[in-house]
Amino acid sequence: MSQFLHTKYADLRPYIPGEQPQDRKYIKLNANETSMPPSSEVLKALSNPLIRGMGKYADPHCHALRQAIGEYYNVPEEQVFVGNGSDEVLGFCFMSFFSETSRICFPDITYGFYEVYANAFHLDAQAIPLREDFSIDVEPYVRTDRHVVLANPNAPTGMVLPVQAIERIAAACPERIVVVDEAYVDYGNASCVPLVARYPNLVVVQTYSKSRNLAGARIGFAIASPEVVSDMMKIKCAFNPFNMSAMALSVGIAAIRDTEYLKWCTRRIIENREYTKTRLERMGFYATDSHTNFLFVHHPALDAEVYYRALKAAGILTRHYAVPRIRDFLRITVGTRAEMDAVLEATEKILRCQGRHAS
Amino acid sequence: MSQFLHTKYADLRPYIPGEQPQDRKYIKLNANETSMPPSSEVLKALSNPLIRGMGKYADPHCHALRQAIGEYYNVPEEQVFVGNGSDEVLGFCFMSFFSETSRICFPDITYGFYEVYANAFHLDAQAIPLREDFSIDVEPYVRTDRHVVLANPNAPTGMVLPVQAIERIAAACPERIVVVDEAYVDYGNASCVPLVARYPNLVVVQTYSKSRNLAGARIGFAIASPEVVSDMMKIKCAFNPFNMSAMALSVGIAAIRDTEYLKWCTRRIIENREYTKTRLERMGFYATDSHTNFLFVHHPALDAEVYYRALKAAGILTRHYAVPRIRDFLRITVGTRAEMDAVLEATEKILRCQGRHAS
Repeated sequence: MSQFLHTKYADLRPYIPGEQPQDRKYIKLNANETSMPPSSEVLKALSNPLIRGMGKYADPHCHALRQAIGEYYNVPEEQVFVGNGSDEVLGFCFMSFFSETSRICFPDITYGFYEVYANAFHLDAQAIPLREDFSIDVEPYVRTDRHVVLANPNAPTGMVLPVQAIERIAAACPERIVVVDEAYVDYGNASCVPLVARYPNLVVVQTYSKSRNLAGARIGFAIASPEVVSDMMKIKCAFNPFNMSAMALSVGIAAIRDTEYLKWCTRRIIENREYTKTRLERMGFYATDSHTNFLFVHHPALDAEVYYRALKAAGILTRHYAVPRIRDFLRITVGTRAEMDAVLEATEKILRCQGRHAS
Repeated sequence: MSQFLHTKYADLRPYIPGEQPQDRKYIKLNANETSMPPSSEVLKALSNPLIRGMGKYADPHCHALRQAIGEYYNVPEEQVFVGNGSDEVLGFCFMSFFSETSRICFPDITYGFYEVYANAFHLDAQAIPLREDFSIDVEPYVRTDRHVVLANPNAPTGMVLPVQAIERIAAACPERIVVVDEAYVDYGNASCVPLVARYPNLVVVQTYSKSRNLAGARIGFAIASPEVVSDMMKIKCAFNPFNMSAMALSVGIAAIRDTEYLKWCTRRIIENREYTKTRLERMGFYATDSHTNFLFVHHPALDAEVYYRALKAAGILTRHYAVPRIRDFLRITVGTRAEMDAVLEATEKILRCQGRHAS
């Protein structure tokens, strides 16, 4: 730390991204990315005239991309905010609507970034415990007047709330912001976007990093009331007006229009998820009811951290959280069928080996 | 404005980017961009394996790009911070080292974003007047203990301070941060990067948006002490860990390595600048001593706003600032020889027409 870092960050705990070790080749199932290539339209988009004209600034208002996303969701461009990944979208959302001592709440087990933001922006944050089975109890969110941040489906549990539950939360207190992070919505779930027309306090955030196979392209968006989007645009323009590159705009438009590929990819992931889940259950695992591109699994006879290390030794990266309540679980991203077969094969070996040690 | 925008932004004045009208085709000389295409290596870089693997997150530490920039400047990777455009780099710099009521200073006439940041972060900002001839008087910066933000060369004047002057400012008060924004350094100027080894309070910021012909790619960087860079990385990881896309990383590496093309482009721009300046001077214009890719010009018999409008009507975009001290000046980005000939031809016509009206 230099002598210059502002003292208000003395306790700052930055987000820790999934590891990216370079020591060998791994099957990378630790960051809920995809193992599929981007749409061929995306690769074509990178040789379009917008890219050759990259000497000029791209549109800071991102009209064309916001329009394309709006068309997909049947909302006008004025209700779409785009950012350099959904993390930046969430960041601008926090910057715009919350300030030091703003009161927010989110589940005790959820995407780790909400706590990082709460910490970085010095918010008064309450972690509301998930039920024993990791499901979200809606009542505390309905009763509180705190701003709400909810991932739906939730991570790393993969479990989903019905749209009606989110609606109850949004309706309960129209004076507070309700952010719904739908990073994993495309894996067969209903979106809250249609609620936005009725609830001006609702901000629905989505990403291209999962179902659109574009984690490396950094594209996220929010759909909200025109006023909320206009506020976020204003804050963006005071921080980084040109937050979207010509490449991101070009790729973003191509990807959102390729609905067929989205459907094909998400169908495959759901198939591979259910296939893997069934096999793991046969081996004695418990898996949560995941509606995402990952599984969250526990085995009564296998320490989750040991399992994580053994998979890593077998060349497979997964994610283990050494934190209360979920330290006995492992999060495994769903990749291709071949990748999942590698996980299953390695898991069988690990269990056999573990059995020998135990006996 | 929604009811949710935090009250602390009531007086927020966002940055106003150069206009991008879509009503017709313009020669765009209003944003100090380039009229040259990116390096052919850049276009090749967009079909490399990093892009096909864009389903995965790119390296949040941006090792390969920081290393490539470090090689160019002969500093280790630990001294290089990269961001989504130099605006974001400046943003993280402000976030890291300044907080509400931090005392900073910058020239009264300079890049407009410093005031926007000062305003957005609620800093105590002092605007130190340029001399009558728009040169920077170093003494007030040496005497004050405020943090300093200086563009060198300065914009929109184009005028440059010698490295020794910056060194005096950095040396005068080692407890405060001195940010030197070298967006236009490549047009024949000496960089302050070599000073960083001796002054841990110095942060040198550069961009790919000017000399590297990549305004649309959003790549900027800072070179500073390892401690300062590590602080900025920490703040970045609490806001947007994956701020650089696979595309930006790939393009950034290819562009920084193509030194020949950089030299060729900047030489052409300098030639075109001097050519245009000489011609304008012959028409009675005064032009500041620009060391950048733009000219800042004034004509005693031609109102600068009228000139701006007349050029726009002729299909040429330039930038006029309706603010005190510089409202009689016009900023014209230096483009290709053909574009500058179009400016000169239009200017001759405007002056003739103006003469007729005056007589």
